[in-house]
This record gives sequence, structure tokens and C-alpha cells, in this order.
Amino acid sequence: MRLDHTHDIGARSWVESANAPQSAFPLQNLPFAVFRRAGTAEAFRGGVALGDYVIDLDAVATLGGLSGMAAQAASACAQPTLNAFFALGPDAWRALRHALFAWFKAGDATARTGVSIDELTACLVPRNEVEYALPAQIGDYTDFYTSVDHARNIVKLMRPDGSLSANFQWMPIAYHGRVSSIGLSGQPVRRPVGQRLAAGKREPELGPSARLDYELELGIFIGVGNEQGTRIPVESADEHVFGLCLLNDWSARDIQTWESVPLGPFLAKNFATTISPWIVTMDALAPFRTALARPEGDPQPLDYLSSQALPDQAAFDIQLEVALETADARRSGKRASRLSRTSFRHQYWSIAQMVAHHTIGGCNLRSGDLLGSGTISGPTASEAGALIELSRAGQSPVELDTGETRSFLEDGDAVVMSGWCERAGFASIGFGESRSEVLPAMWE
Amino acid sequence: MRLDHTHDIGARSWVESANAPQSAFPLQNLPFAVFRRAGTAEAFRGGVALGDYVIDLDAVATLGGLSGMAAQAASACAQPTLNAFFALGPDAWRALRHALFAWFKAGDATARTGVSIDELTACLVPRNEVEYALPAQIGDYTDFYTSVDHARNIVKLMRPDGSLSANFQWMPIAYHGRVSSIGLSGQPVRRPVGQRLAAGKREPELGPSARLDYELELGIFIGVGNEQGTRIPVESADEHVFGLCLLNDWSARDIQTWESVPLGPFLAKNFATTISPWIVTMDALAPFRTALARPEGDPQPLDYLSSQALPDQAAFDIQLEVALETADARRSGKRASRLSRTSFRHQYWSIAQMVAHHTIGGCNLRSGDLLGSGTISGPTASEAGALIELSRAGQSPVELDTGETRSFLEDGDAVVMSGWCERAGFASIGFGESRSEVLPAMWE
Repeated sequence: MRLDHTHDIGARSWVESANAPQSAFPLQNLPFAVFRRAGTAEAFRGGVALGDYVIDLDAVATLGGLSGMAAQAASACAQPTLNAFFALGPDAWRALRHALFAWFKAGDATARTGVSIDELTACLVPRNEVEYALPAQIGDYTDFYTSVDHARNIVKLMRPDGSLSANFQWMPIAYHGRVSSIGLSGQPVRRPVGQRLAAGKREPELGPSARLDYELELGIFIGVGNEQGTRIPVESADEHVFGLCLLNDWSARDIQTWESVPLGPFLAKNFATTISPWIVTMDALAPFRTALARPEGDPQPLDYLSSQALPDQAAFDIQLEVALETADARRSGKRASRLSRTSFRHQYWSIAQMVAHHTIGGCNLRSGDLLGSGTISGPTASEAGALIELSRAGQSPVELDTGETRSFLEDGDAVVMSGWCERAGFASIGFGESRSEVLPAMWE
Repeated sequence: MRLDHTHDIGARSWVESANAPQSAFPLQNLPFAVFRRAGTAEAFRGGVALGDYVIDLDAVATLGGLSGMAAQAASACAQPTLNAFFALGPDAWRALRHALFAWFKAGDATARTGVSIDELTACLVPRNEVEYALPAQIGDYTDFYTSVDHARNIVKLMRPDGSLSANFQWMPIAYHGRVSSIGLSGQPVRRPVGQRLAAGKREPELGPSARLDYELELGIFIGVGNEQGTRIPVESADEHVFGLCLLNDWSARDIQTWESVPLGPFLAKNFATTISPWIVTMDALAPFRTALARPEGDPQPLDYLSSQALPDQAAFDIQLEVALETADARRSGKRASRLSRTSFRHQYWSIAQMVAHHTIGGCNLRSGDLLGSGTISGPTASEAGALIELSRAGQSPVELDTGETRSFLEDGDAVVMSGWCERAGFASIGFGESRSEVLPAMWE
């Protein structure tokens, strides 16, 4: 997508909280979620964040005043999942974005023909009074492995003499994940019980994971899929993607080590995956596109993974941060300790390449499918996206601001992920946060 | 489940075709599918096979005459998926089974109080006039790897000096599969395109899979799931399973070899999975339970995988056969060639163990989830459940009855799987078949 007037840094909203410099949700963002007033029996429906408010899209659709694709899009958003809205495609997504932008922009009354500010104000729900549901019925969830820094860190920890698997530079590696246990920020995550093989032992034993970890990822919501037996070309793949959220790919490293050969991770991952409620659209992210960082000398991708269309804009410069709030810190009112900070721009494979690879064999994607980017680690040690990398698998426990240390997650720890984009000449936009606390294992 | 009157070999139906000795669907079977009259715009709804007919459960529910759980079950089956019916649980499944058994049994008019044979006859749709839909909305699909003979065959082919992975004897290994591309018997399957690394080469190339294969499996439909963070004990796991169908886990071996390290199969499997339309219930299968064949000297499973409840009845003696119909055979009116025949009783891990393992870490199963048993191979060479085993990865091409040979599948080949159970003193029951044809790759 090219930049348009919805990216103008000068545009302000008559919803004043959207203009605060620290707001994650200025007029230029307009991310989507599914929400209702907390604690009520209201139907869940689509909403768009603006400053301290949620624009209720069911109320917007009922208002009238929209026409054509924007009206159709708003109506589709009145449902308890956004799947039907996604399926309408990028022209409809943009029509609604442009309509909301015009309606909520300050000083442009002509764009609001037939709709008054009072009527629009009645569509606003204070954001601190809502609760969220998963934004889509997720048909399938695929988790990728596309950070070369993460891959190198893991290889070094596991096999000091090892090297990256030969296929890494040739394809965005992925495996299928579990849909049923995907939850939203706020979901408590129970420490899993599973089989682990202790060092030097020949027989596994059952017990709570002693190496519970998070993985910092972005979630990628598929807007428009493809028919089984067809593929999505890399050149048009971005048009199939609706937007991104934060994703925590919880991982039990001890369970993973013992179970993963030969078929990959299973129980080590499927006990929980946590995503943030707001989906930031690809259109909102357009100003933060940047070149993909494929090192000189690495082989060029095969044709079906080479995008000629946007050679310098395949990656996104999205700032990401992970913080840990221990039970002790929470009790004593201390802040969460920052564990790492990095950017999504370091990723080896782009989102478009993930989509093209996923469908090259004819696998059908559907509206609402979720892809995980894979753990996002940057090139320096402090940019690692998982505790196992930061603590070097427990050899160098991480020191927290509270004076505590961590090799892996302990019960009561809350993992807090946040993301935002900033670039000179553009309004900063945010993802909000994903926060989830570890509960003790069920273990007699 | 204990045996009851619905397993009596003497019970006959007034629907005469159900009493034919070769019928897959006698009164003792009563498997479930979702169907409608072919080529119409009728709503899909649940049905039960009886002889040459489908009992239309929407019509049954409308009839009245059922009460309590049986009535509730029939109403749930009137929907276009069986998920709501599954969620009612085993007492409801049995109540409907018992009610249908009584209604359609010959010579027991007292069981049909208030419902006439004419009214029941009006609920029958000729089976050769219907088309099917997936029986449930499948939330997640998990594919297991539980045949030790298959595992040994594959290890021998891949690494002549290799041995079974150390975890095989300790857990039913599994990975998550793709839901979107699961289709029904009859779905054409397009040969996938993907990356393959030719022998001796350092760079992969893209092209149609040259090693397309099938895998003979059973599909296992979860009836009742569990809450996230809880587990299903092995002792009660069978009560969570609704029933079984045939499953073809299509596999592109060349794509699989190159992509599977380190995270397991992805594009090699996700282009298609084919299941048969009829789900044979666990209750119908009760007479065919048998002991699980864990060899003497193998380690005993950990407690959470040890069933004390049914020590000699954890496995099912289900006869399975794979046949190949080539395009040439089809043109000249020849029969399909049998490739292999085996029984599910050779499996190393039971269905109950798969369910218990899947949930030990707190992963939630949901009504309508599908598990694949993993490739079912028996102890002898002719019992192998995949072409790669039968042809020894192409070293010994299989000779077909038509005089043709196959190392892997060719375009136009139809893979036909069938299954049935037989045991002295009990009525034989069948699964019907799964049949699917290979289309040429989309490849310019």
C-alpha cells in the first residue's frame, strides 16, 4: 500500500485523548478488536481504538451515514468475530478506515454529512470499561521460525559446534500450532506438566515444567485466503494480510527437548498462546516499512519467494519490548523489569514470504487464520526474544531491577509484551500490550 | 463400554438391506455422517447409515416419539455439523443409539409406541442418492505417530544404522496438522509443488513433488473435550471419544525430507487430508476391542499412560485395506489393485493413551476435534500403510495387478481405503471407504 492522507502526521481528532503524544491509538492507527462493556451480557462486536475510547462498530453501522463498501464493512464488524469483515478484502478494509478517519478528524465537518458529532460521540465506549474476545474465529494457527538471530542463539545453546539447519536460508520454516488454547492478554497460564528427560537419565519422568519460557512474536491475521490447490504469489501476498498483534508463544523447554524429535514441538507449546486484543492494520503500518535484512552473500531466495514489487519495503520496523513483573514486585508495587527490546525489522523472512511459502503447495488459508512470526530476536544479546536466550539456558541468570534473578519463568511471574512504531515525520502508533501471569502447575 | 443388546448378532432390521451379510451398515453399526440429497440445496444435517439407506435425523427429530436424552440428541443432529451432538456426551450418544436400534429392529413393535413403520420409512433416504459434508467443524487436527512397525520401517529406510527415537516407547508422539485442507472421500487432491533438495545438491529447487504418498490412518473424533489447564485421565479417556473414520494423511516425501528439520512436517502434509464420511461409534466398536500389543521387555508406560481399567481391551481389531486404482485400470474397467492389508490392533499406543497424553499439559480438546492415529502398519512387509514402505522408498517398486508398477503415486491414481470389523459371534460392521484421486500439479 502507498501512503495516503490517513498517514498525515498533522491530522488530529476531535476525540482529544487520541492526540496525546503518548497515545498508542491516534487517528492514524485505528486498530480493530472485538469487545463489549466489561461484566455485561452484551454481545461481543467489532470496535476500533481511538485515544481512550473504543469506537463501537455495531453502533456505527446502526447510525447510517456510511455508504457502499464502508457501510458493508461496518455491518460485517457488528458481528462477534471479524471473519466476515476480513473476507470482504482490502478495498473494504480501506473504505472503513477512510470513513472513520474522516468522521473522527477534527475540523472537517463536511466529511460528516448527515452525522453529527453528538451521534458519533454516542458510539464511543471508554476503553477502560471494556473486555475483549478473540478478534476472529481462528481456523488454523501456524507458527513460523524466521529470526536468524533467534535461530543462531538456539543452535549455539543446544549444540556449540552446530550450525543453522541447511533449509533456514531457503524457506521460512514453520509448523502447525494449536488453536484451542489461544487466549487473549489477561489469560492466566497454568504451568504445564509433562515428560522430561533429566540429564544423564535414560528414563523420563512426569512433572511440572522446570523450564517454562515465553517467546516474543507478532501474530499475523490473514484477511483473505485462497482456494485449496492454488497459491498466493509473493507479489500480492500483503493484500491478503489484515494486520498484526502481539503474540506470546509460551514454551516449556524441557518438555520440548524430549518430545520434539522427530515431529517437532507438541505439548511444549500447545498448553497456551496469548495474543493482544488489538490488530494493527497493514495500512496503519505502511509508514514503517523498511528493507529486509538479508545479509550479503546469503543465497537469493527462489523465485516464488522473491518480491520484486516492494524490494526495499518487505520488513516492518516495529519496536518490541518484553518486561517481567514478579509476584514480589507486584506485592511491593514495583515496576516490571525490562528483559529485552528489539525490532521486527531484523527478521530474515518477510510476512509476504511467509504467506507465499505457506500456500506454494496448495494449502488453503482462510479469513481469520493466524500466523506467528516466530520468536523475534535482534542481533545483540539484549535483543533476545526468549528467556532461554537471555539466560543462556540458565547458565547466566537474568538480573531483574528488583534484585531477583530468573533463568526461566517462576509461578506468579507476569510476562508483559508491548509494541509500537515511530518514525520521524509520522505519528507514532502502538499495539497496546499483552500481559499474562503464570499459575502454579496442577500437580499432586 | 460393556456389550449390550445392540451388539446381539441375532438382531435384524425391518430395513432388509441392513441384513445382507456383506452390508457394512447392519443394525449393530449405526454410524453417523452429515449429508443431504445430492445436487440439491437442502440443508446438510446428521444421518445414520442403515443398510442401503441413511436415516435422516432431522426427519427423526421432527417426527416426535423420542423423549429425554434421545430426543435432545436427535435435535442436536438436525444441525449441519455434529459438534453440538458430540458435546452432549456419551449418555446422549447411547440414548440415541438405543432408540434407533429399537425403532429399526424387526419384530419389536412395542418399542415403536406412537411411531409407525410408515413414518420411519419416510425418514430413510437412499444412500446412493446423497452427498456428504464434513461431519463436524474441526477446531484442531492432531496427527499421531503410534505404529511401531511403521516407525521401524521408516527408520530402516532413512538410516540403515539408525534406531527408533528414544521417546517412542515413552509417549504417543504427535504434531499439529492442518484443518483447512481436510476434505471428504471424493475430494480430488492436487499434487503439491514445493522445495526439494536433490541427492548430492546443495541448493533446493522448486517443482511438483516426485514422491507423493498416502498414509493409511484412522481418524478419531473427540466427542467431549476438557477445559484448558485440566487433563483427561487415561481411565476415562474413551468416554471422550465419539468414534472413528478412515483417514488418508497425504504426504509429499521429498518436500518432507527437506523441510522437516527442526520443526517437523509442514507443507509436506498440509495440502490435503482425506477422511471417510461415516463415523463408526466407539459403542459399535466395543465387540472388537482387544489387547494392546506392547512387546515383552519394553518399558511400562508412566502412570498417566497406564490404563488399569481395561488392560486387555485398549486396542481395536479393525481390518484395514488400501487399494490403488490407476488411470489406466479405470479406463479399461479393471479393478483396483490391493496394496496392503493390516489391522489397527498392532498399534503401540491406544486411543485412550493418545487422549491422555494430549491433555497432560493442560491443552484443551474440543468437541469435533480430530486426531489421526498415525500411519497404521503391521508387523509384516505386506501390512505397510504407506507406499514408501511398500516400495522401500522406490528401491522395490510395487507390482500392481494390472502389470503396472508404482514407487510413489502418479497423476490419475486413486487411493481407496476401506475398513471393517469381524469377530465370531458378532455382526460384522464396516467403515465404508475413502477414495480420492491425484490431480496433476499446477506447474508452468
